[in-house]
Amino acid sequence: MPDRDKPLFILNGPNLNLLGVREPEIYGRATLADVKAVCERAAGARAIDFRQTNHEGVLIDWLHEAREKAAAIILNPGAYAHTSIALRDAVSALPVPLIEVHLSNIAAREPFRHHSHVAGVAKGVVMGFGAESYALAIAAALRLEGAVS
Amino acid sequence: MPDRDKPLFILNGPNLNLLGVREPEIYGRATLADVKAVCERAAGARAIDFRQTNHEGVLIDWLHEAREKAAAIILNPGAYAHTSIALRDAVSALPVPLIEVHLSNIAAREPFRHHSHVAGVAKGVVMGFGAESYALAIAAALRLEGAVS
Amino acid sequence: MPDRDKPLFILNGPNLNLLGVREPEIYGRATLADVKAVCERAAGARAIDFRQTNHEGVLIDWLHEAREKAAAIILNPGAYAHTSIALRDAVSALPVPLIEVHLSNIAAREPFRHHSHVAGVAKGVVMGFGAESYALAIAAALRLEGAVS
Amino acid sequence: MPDRDKPLFILNGPNLNLLGVREPEIYGRATLADVKAVCERAAGARAIDFRQTNHEGVLIDWLHEAREKAAAIILNPGAYAHTSIALRDAVSALPVPLIEVHLSNIAAREPFRHHSHVAGVAKGVVMGFGAESYALAIAAALRLEGAVS
Amino acid sequence: MPDRDKPLFILNGPNLNLLGVREPEIYGRATLADVKAVCERAAGARAIDFRQTNHEGVLIDWLHEAREKAAAIILNPGAYAHTSIALRDAVSALPVPLIEVHLSNIAAREPFRHHSHVAGVAKGVVMGFGAESYALAIAAALRLEGAVS
Amino acid sequence: MPDRDKPLFILNGPNLNLLGVREPEIYGRATLADVKAVCERAAGARAIDFRQTNHEGVLIDWLHEAREKAAAIILNPGAYAHTSIALRDAVSALPVPLIEVHLSNIAAREPFRHHSHVAGVAKGVVMGFGAESYALAIAAALRLEGAVS
Amino acid sequence: MPDRDKPLFILNGPNLNLLGVREPEIYGRATLADVKAVCERAAGARAIDFRQTNHEGVLIDWLHEAREKAAAIILNPGAYAHTSIALRDAVSALPVPLIEVHLSNIAAREPFRHHSHVAGVAKGVVMGFGAESYALAIAAALRLEGAVS
Amino acid sequence: MPDRDKPLFILNGPNLNLLGVREPEIYGRATLADVKAVCERAAGARAIDFRQTNHEGVLIDWLHEAREKAAAIILNPGAYAHTSIALRDAVSALPVPLIEVHLSNIAAREPFRHHSHVAGVAKGVVMGFGAESYALAIAAALRLEGAVS
Amino acid sequence: MPDRDKPLFILNGPNLNLLGVREPEIYGRATLADVKAVCERAAGARAIDFRQTNHEGVLIDWLHEAREKAAAIILNPGAYAHTSIALRDAVSALPVPLIEVHLSNIAAREPFRHHSHVAGVAKGVVMGFGAESYALAIAAALRLEGAVS
Amino acid sequence: MPDRDKPLFILNGPNLNLLGVREPEIYGRATLADVKAVCERAAGARAIDFRQTNHEGVLIDWLHEAREKAAAIILNPGAYAHTSIALRDAVSALPVPLIEVHLSNIAAREPFRHHSHVAGVAKGVVMGFGAESYALAIAAALRLEGAVS
Amino acid sequence: MPDRDKPLFILNGPNLNLLGVREPEIYGRATLADVKAVCERAAGARAIDFRQTNHEGVLIDWLHEAREKAAAIILNPGAYAHTSIALRDAVSALPVPLIEVHLSNIAAREPFRHHSHVAGVAKGVVMGFGAESYALAIAAALRLEGAVS
Amino acid sequence: MPDRDKPLFILNGPNLNLLGVREPEIYGRATLADVKAVCERAAGARAIDFRQTNHEGVLIDWLHEAREKAAAIILNPGAYAHTSIALRDAVSALPVPLIEVHLSNIAAREPFRHHSHVAGVAKGVVMGFGAESYALAIAAALRLEGAVS
Repeated sequence: MPDRDKPLFILNGPNLNLLGVREPEIYGRATLADVKAVCERAAGARAIDFRQTNHEGVLIDWLHEAREKAAAIILNPGAYAHTSIALRDAVSALPVPLIEVHLSNIAAREPFRHHSHVAGVAKGVVMGFGAESYALAIAAALRLEGAVS
Repeated sequence: MPDRDKPLFILNGPNLNLLGVREPEIYGRATLADVKAVCERAAGARAIDFRQTNHEGVLIDWLHEAREKAAAIILNPGAYAHTSIALRDAVSALPVPLIEVHLSNIAAREPFRHHSHVAGVAKGVVMGFGAESYALAIAAALRLEGAVS
Repeated sequence: MPDRDKPLFILNGPNLNLLGVREPEIYGRATLADVKAVCERAAGARAIDFRQTNHEGVLIDWLHEAREKAAAIILNPGAYAHTSIALRDAVSALPVPLIEVHLSNIAAREPFRHHSHVAGVAKGVVMGFGAESYALAIAAALRLEGAVS
Repeated sequence: MPDRDKPLFILNGPNLNLLGVREPEIYGRATLADVKAVCERAAGARAIDFRQTNHEGVLIDWLHEAREKAAAIILNPGAYAHTSIALRDAVSALPVPLIEVHLSNIAAREPFRHHSHVAGVAKGVVMGFGAESYALAIAAALRLEGAVS
Repeated sequence: MPDRDKPLFILNGPNLNLLGVREPEIYGRATLADVKAVCERAAGARAIDFRQTNHEGVLIDWLHEAREKAAAIILNPGAYAHTSIALRDAVSALPVPLIEVHLSNIAAREPFRHHSHVAGVAKGVVMGFGAESYALAIAAALRLEGAVS
Repeated sequence: MPDRDKPLFILNGPNLNLLGVREPEIYGRATLADVKAVCERAAGARAIDFRQTNHEGVLIDWLHEAREKAAAIILNPGAYAHTSIALRDAVSALPVPLIEVHLSNIAAREPFRHHSHVAGVAKGVVMGFGAESYALAIAAALRLEGAVS
Repeated sequence: MPDRDKPLFILNGPNLNLLGVREPEIYGRATLADVKAVCERAAGARAIDFRQTNHEGVLIDWLHEAREKAAAIILNPGAYAHTSIALRDAVSALPVPLIEVHLSNIAAREPFRHHSHVAGVAKGVVMGFGAESYALAIAAALRLEGAVS
Repeated sequence: MPDRDKPLFILNGPNLNLLGVREPEIYGRATLADVKAVCERAAGARAIDFRQTNHEGVLIDWLHEAREKAAAIILNPGAYAHTSIALRDAVSALPVPLIEVHLSNIAAREPFRHHSHVAGVAKGVVMGFGAESYALAIAAALRLEGAVS
Repeated sequence: MPDRDKPLFILNGPNLNLLGVREPEIYGRATLADVKAVCERAAGARAIDFRQTNHEGVLIDWLHEAREKAAAIILNPGAYAHTSIALRDAVSALPVPLIEVHLSNIAAREPFRHHSHVAGVAKGVVMGFGAESYALAIAAALRLEGAVS
Repeated sequence: MPDRDKPLFILNGPNLNLLGVREPEIYGRATLADVKAVCERAAGARAIDFRQTNHEGVLIDWLHEAREKAAAIILNPGAYAHTSIALRDAVSALPVPLIEVHLSNIAAREPFRHHSHVAGVAKGVVMGFGAESYALAIAAALRLEGAVS
Repeated sequence: MPDRDKPLFILNGPNLNLLGVREPEIYGRATLADVKAVCERAAGARAIDFRQTNHEGVLIDWLHEAREKAAAIILNPGAYAHTSIALRDAVSALPVPLIEVHLSNIAAREPFRHHSHVAGVAKGVVMGFGAESYALAIAAALRLEGAVS
Repeated sequence: MPDRDKPLFILNGPNLNLLGVREPEIYGRATLADVKAVCERAAGARAIDFRQTNHEGVLIDWLHEAREKAAAIILNPGAYAHTSIALRDAVSALPVPLIEVHLSNIAAREPFRHHSHVAGVAKGVVMGFGAESYALAIAAALRLEGAVS
């Protein structure tokens, strides 16, 4: 199956199911369903596969699954960004590009959020724009495809 | 449902199912069933929901579930206290108080056990009294209710 | 004199005489007299010896005195928790149990308050419940007596 | 002058005038003129003011000038990101949003490039997509305008 | 059941299911099935129970299960070696010996891979010999049995 | 009693009684009596209450006393600046301004003298001018009164 | 030209031109022109040469110029205090005294503002009193002249 | 009064009054009275002034008193060795030699006991020989007198 | 001379001549002669050259000699593992594989033994199995030969 | 233009214009004009372009200019060596060799001078010989030319 | 051979052969021969075996030899104190007491001299008294014999 | 013997005997004999004494010998630069100048090679020019002689 027929995987990590409820002064009032809608609009005709889990192991399983099934990956690793080298390894083993996104600007928060194990093996990073971070990352992923085709 | 009709969640993290077997010179000879019995006595007429898991993701799922269903939470995060920022985020998003407990006094053990990511977002901490740590935390939770009602 | 005829020593360190006046958003509006009243209620028939000092050396003198005269000790070391190894040595030399208490949850405050030299040699720690921290610590001390008698 | 009549400032820091020449395996073969062309396409009808300097002080002067004259700012601080608190102060004093961009993914390079003083006071960050980083940042800036109008 | 009738547990952590595919210049071209075949040859007549998971919690569950069912354990913790104190606790609670193995020599890789929480509570460590690391560890486990019988 | 009828407290910490004798190449040849005379001249008609102690606890007691009795406080904490969080807490609980002074420029001395726990909760700092540091601090205190009256 | 016929140099570093506009809750509402007026009043009959620049190199040039032309220097290095060793070298090469001033108390702000490279080679430091910091520093400079003449 | 007519001051810090009682496996079974007797024997015809206090401030007062009255000082600073810069300052201001002693070998104990602020300004250090540490230090002090007379 | 006709060098560093005598609770009761016997059995028909020295320089000389004369090297660097970069350089310059062995599991001992300069340039590491560590390393060396022939 | 027809650029950073005046016990009594004379002698028939600036940005501009115009570069970055990553980037982008020089031996001075960002991307370093450092660096540059021609 | 018939070993490490010549302001003018004479006087009738070497390996050889031949050891490890874990291991394997001596007070010198690997496994430490450090250590060794006989 | 009649000592540390063989991409293809030839050419009529050893202790012995016999010393300490304080002490005790050389630019290599204990007590440093580093150092040594004669 040519890559362009494959969907974009959009994977969300721990606590993102609480979006719109948890600390709205940081994360805004949009729910995860709202984020999904933003992604669908940004992807246009392109299919997306949008998921969330609180389990580090499930995120790794999905990244392995994506090796075959996804054209590219948008990953919001949540707090696992700061603690999971296993996640980093799953990302560095990917044959397709992965873009890390964050709703908030993690550089403007507590020091223990400044470092992401994932960032060092991602293609690029977009953060700080709320749900728009996802839209920009999808735009980036679609342009990257153009760049190599 | 008014908060006082809701149970206390008492959540136990990794390796606590081995209580009474694992390193009894540190953790004592009481089993997890014994700890549950101590909790039931301490809670008196108040219902408790007592659980254990070795999975970080399950602990996070339970904390999300507790947002609606629990009046308060007693959490023994085990070793995830020292490594899980995702757990910390789930705690800081709670609308109800959470009290961190430890059987042993973690300040008197190896340096890598001195810091708890959870403690900074808990209401309070009780540690060092074996199974009685739970009883004291339950007493504290019940008094906190009185404080706000 | 059998231990149960001896009082509980409840020792308070620097600046705790200002309770109710100093930074009430952190320490609450209860005064040190209020804390003493909470302790008397919690101790019930058991005598308590409740004291406060701003002097590190006096705290050490009192801990030495407690070796003979106290059945157990509740210590709120205030800021000396973070800086006094001499206090730690006095605690580790005690033949009776000592429980460290704090009104606030020191793990949720400035980094320089996260570490306590005393905690590593205390029996246990209770913190974050305002004056109730003392009541819980007294309950713990009384239960510990039962455990060994 | 209403904000939408003001241009976007696109400011480039030290060594970016060498783009296309310096270490193309990291920064790509696009020259700074190519980047400018990408920006013009991304901005569409909106005017941009595109500049480069090797002087920290000049970047600060331009940020001060931008307080009045720019609707938003895209800043590629180059290596001053890692060393200039003065630049950070100029950014944190801005009444308009600033987005930090980098051609490369600085999290994937030498450790001394991982930290940006500017990021903590930027609205958001886009990095790792070569010249497309600028296009995405411009898109973000235009959407932010919509968000507030 | 005497220990020698019990199998050796051979437990593999995150991303090891990708062996032969992921970064072959580091991990070699052998697949996990090849590693299993190496293990069976090395174990000879002795039964082995060979498993892999990406979930930290499942590894802990298996280690608990091994307390009763295994004569000894060969553990390749993957990246959880570097981040999981919960895993370390499960290992230190084992009544049977555990040997840590790594395909690559983790001391020769990135600094964040140099430290293993597990190593400090393992019986021994074998690393750097690809699939042969497992064969050597099995030989060691069988000799250890001889040593105590 | 209106604030302007209250004296300025000028409190001196450990070893300052040795002024003029101890390491005159650092602290100068002026004695503490000379410093007091400088302060009286600087205060003019305003009363001052000038004291010295080598005891951390006494400094804390005096700061508590100053809460009621002093209009403002000039504090030379001596070496307790570097080690006493209890002193810092006493300062941060003050309802009146406190200015930290040092005879020498502590930033130009040994590294362990560069950090002052007190400075972070003082109104301001004056250091490096010998006895004139006190005169400048008194001038500052008098001007601050004017600023709020 | 005798030193007393020379002016005082009052040099201001990056972002100080924004005074009164930038973060007034930290820096106050006084503009740089107001600060200059405060300085003129404080200097009385003595001439001052009051300047501001955002360029590290210009500050160094001015300090070199001051070697011949100034009787003393008041320097507010702004954020270059924290990052510029070149500035420190220019200060340590001065044949006339330099006093470092800050409007805010940098010890009470973010940790990256606590250290000043300049302080270690300044005669003294005055900080935390807003524009009055300058007036006090000028008073100090004038007294220092008296001290040596 | 010629120096040889002055006594040796032998000053003991916090918790040393508990000698023989506190942790005898570390400090031995000799009491402080026994240590005093050892010192008297070691001093022979020379008078000694032997004291103990738990108060940092009192130790400083005694060191100031010793400036006039003592020929030399043997100081066991106890745990203040590790935390008191004020004590260090009092020692560095002494016109007579001071020898630091410890009963135990502090280099062989917990890391927080390895550093002594006092050692850097003492004439010499003797540690690890129990009460004999004092006898050796007295011998050293008497020989130093010979060296300079 | 074909490599298989060359012996295995088995080199032992400082204090290993004391084996069986020094701290047998850590290193076991086997002497270095016993270890040599284990190695001879493990090597079978293959010749070994077994040596010990307490001199860092001699170890380096032997490694240089091994460049020509040895088919492979088993090195127990003892404590030089933790401190000698010169040894590391001699290892990294080898044209033949070197395997690092330790009798004890150095990851389970004092922190200053956790890091080995040699490990990063060794082919692999075997540790924690007493004299069997050597036998396993020899087995590994013989298999490596098979792998390349 | 063949490289040998191009001059050597000899670039000097901040405060070097003060040579001979500033701290002669460290930098010697030679002025910058003297250094230039030494360079001319050392270069012999080869043209040199000798410059000094206090501005980091100007140094970067000159390095960019040198890309085309210089055969090789001698750079004394002064204190920017320790703080400027932008300068490092300009050096690492050079197509011609750059040699770093220092008059003093920066390894023998304050710790904050021990690290040079530039050294890691220079061809080589010469330091500690006063003005002769430049002569040696010029000799090195001329020999390097010979090496590649 | 009873221990009291064995000599005291007095072992001296690197550069001590230069005593009296090297940096006499730190080490004094006494030569190593003078130190030997001091030791002979202090040992009285007891034989001593006094040696010096610049080789770490030789020191280790001598410590091994001392296991059989010496009653006690006085060791001045020189700079190997700070860098040699192999030396520490040789000391910790000794069946007889070892006392570490230093001519100078290493706590009063450069930071890299403050830590001694040997001190943590020595019986005790004497430092700062020049050649008298040896005499005191010999006295200590002789008394220790008395303590156990 | 006048200094100019004495040879230059050129001392080489561990692994330098492997030059031309070991990692030629770092150290080049020149052998140690080639380096010696370069030195002889550079020294011209002046005698040199060129040596190499892998033993730290021998290097120290040679430096002691050089005190009498050498006019100046060129030292390539190899990896002992990074670990030997004993070597540093031997250098700082020299009455004649010592110049440190390295073939490679150690600042451009692994972080553990960036620091040299020797550099802080050397007259100067030359590194990065292969065998020419020695020629430049010899030139420097000869000029230094001229400087003092």
